[in-house]
Amino acid sequence: MNKQELISVIRQKKSYLCVGLDTDSTKLPKHLLGKPHAVAAFNKAVIDATKDFCVAYKINTAFYEAQGLQGWRAMEETLQYIPQTHFTIADAKRGDIGNTAAQYAKTFFETFPFDAVTVAPYMGKDSVQPFLDYKNKITIVLGLTSNKGAENFELQKLNSGNPLYERVLQECASWGTEDNLMFVVGATQAKLLQRIREIVPNHFLLVPGIGAQGGSLQEVSKYGMNRDCGLLINVSRAIIFASNGEDFADASQIAAKNYQEEMKAFFH
Amino acid sequence: MNKQELISVIRQKKSYLCVGLDTDSTKLPKHLLGKPHAVAAFNKAVIDATKDFCVAYKINTAFYEAQGLQGWRAMEETLQYIPQTHFTIADAKRGDIGNTAAQYAKTFFETFPFDAVTVAPYMGKDSVQPFLDYKNKITIVLGLTSNKGAENFELQKLNSGNPLYERVLQECASWGTEDNLMFVVGATQAKLLQRIREIVPNHFLLVPGIGAQGGSLQEVSKYGMNRDCGLLINVSRAIIFASNGEDFADASQIAAKNYQEEMKAFFH
Repeated sequence: MNKQELISVIRQKKSYLCVGLDTDSTKLPKHLLGKPHAVAAFNKAVIDATKDFCVAYKINTAFYEAQGLQGWRAMEETLQYIPQTHFTIADAKRGDIGNTAAQYAKTFFETFPFDAVTVAPYMGKDSVQPFLDYKNKITIVLGLTSNKGAENFELQKLNSGNPLYERVLQECASWGTEDNLMFVVGATQAKLLQRIREIVPNHFLLVPGIGAQGGSLQEVSKYGMNRDCGLLINVSRAIIFASNGEDFADASQIAAKNYQEEMKAFFH
Repeated sequence: MNKQELISVIRQKKSYLCVGLDTDSTKLPKHLLGKPHAVAAFNKAVIDATKDFCVAYKINTAFYEAQGLQGWRAMEETLQYIPQTHFTIADAKRGDIGNTAAQYAKTFFETFPFDAVTVAPYMGKDSVQPFLDYKNKITIVLGLTSNKGAENFELQKLNSGNPLYERVLQECASWGTEDNLMFVVGATQAKLLQRIREIVPNHFLLVPGIGAQGGSLQEVSKYGMNRDCGLLINVSRAIIFASNGEDFADASQIAAKNYQEEMKAFFH
């Protein structure tokens, strides 16, 4: 799925919800714990329950890698199960020199055919370019993240007087296009979204940090939306682990539906 | 293997060579191409041939991930084959918020029991801390990398007048100890090693960029060594792909031996 298709799905569903499949195998409902293929079975039930209310799924690769080979199998099975009508994101935050970055791009655009992958900017242009070289794929660069550690470097002021993350947005925007590049901007930084929209008015922003991390959907939508909507709001734990019982899928549906209903109000 | 054990192996072997297993499956010698378990077979032959001349092996996870499940199987098989006498590094450059970083730490310290893992600093302290929380494991944070893209952000001056990478070294050094923390410093930046040694005099530095990327072993050793040696110099392609024929293992041995002989001169 490309950006134009994503925009039309968002308009049609009046939803810009992305469900984050951060499926921690130790936090599964008791009746699934330890069963073979439990993670994939859990994900499939969550996907069936939530797909009418969201437009995207984000797979956080860490939770799959930590399970070794069976984790990668669960990731593969989950990705194959996500309907073609939904935008798929590998939340991998990779970043390395050119020949290595090309291998990561191959991993998440070919071996596992996601629509988009998250990438870390620290190592600069040649670490991002191999991802941008893929046609019809989208690279999502970390801009300003939702965690406390954002203060350590991202918010540090450069000698221009502007913080590092602003330079990251500006520089990276010049490497790609509004069609093949998005940015991660944490919801806990909603006040900064007005400034961010001055720098990247037309790019999509992938916004984590709603729900468990405490960001406000209202504020993010108010300050972050653009004419294309321009937002994908990711919610992970508050949806997939909405219940810890056998009703986990129903609970995830209710949670996803609640987010979508809140989002509906922003479409006129 | 911990830092003290690494130091004694370095002294004993008069070598601070790390062989980088960036095993691109499309660049294998013709007689191995396309065979099942070709990557693991190639790696094992290279390990057998080079182990007397190096003290560490670095597995670049990208090249394995790009092969999907069979790549992770090759990584597992390779890691198991590396002798206990050698320091093992997962070159993964991961970085994410705390609960995700904890999963990455689990991946590379437990699921795949490496001695050390490389980590990206952009997201700050809480993205690095879960790695540092492991006892007897080593976290290697990106400081100044060897690629051209280092100019985009790493070398940008902060309003203190110092470049970003210096702040990364300073800050990160305060989060860990000289025993559980190392830094990546590219060999193409050898002139900056004097300055880097003012900031982190006692930490080990993992130095890529010798060989294919053009850095100088002489310069890096001259400016980068400390009383513990303090250097792990990584060479990947110039060793593992020294020959493209059936003699690839012999050729890798000759290349590794040449590096070790150059290193020997720095031990008195």
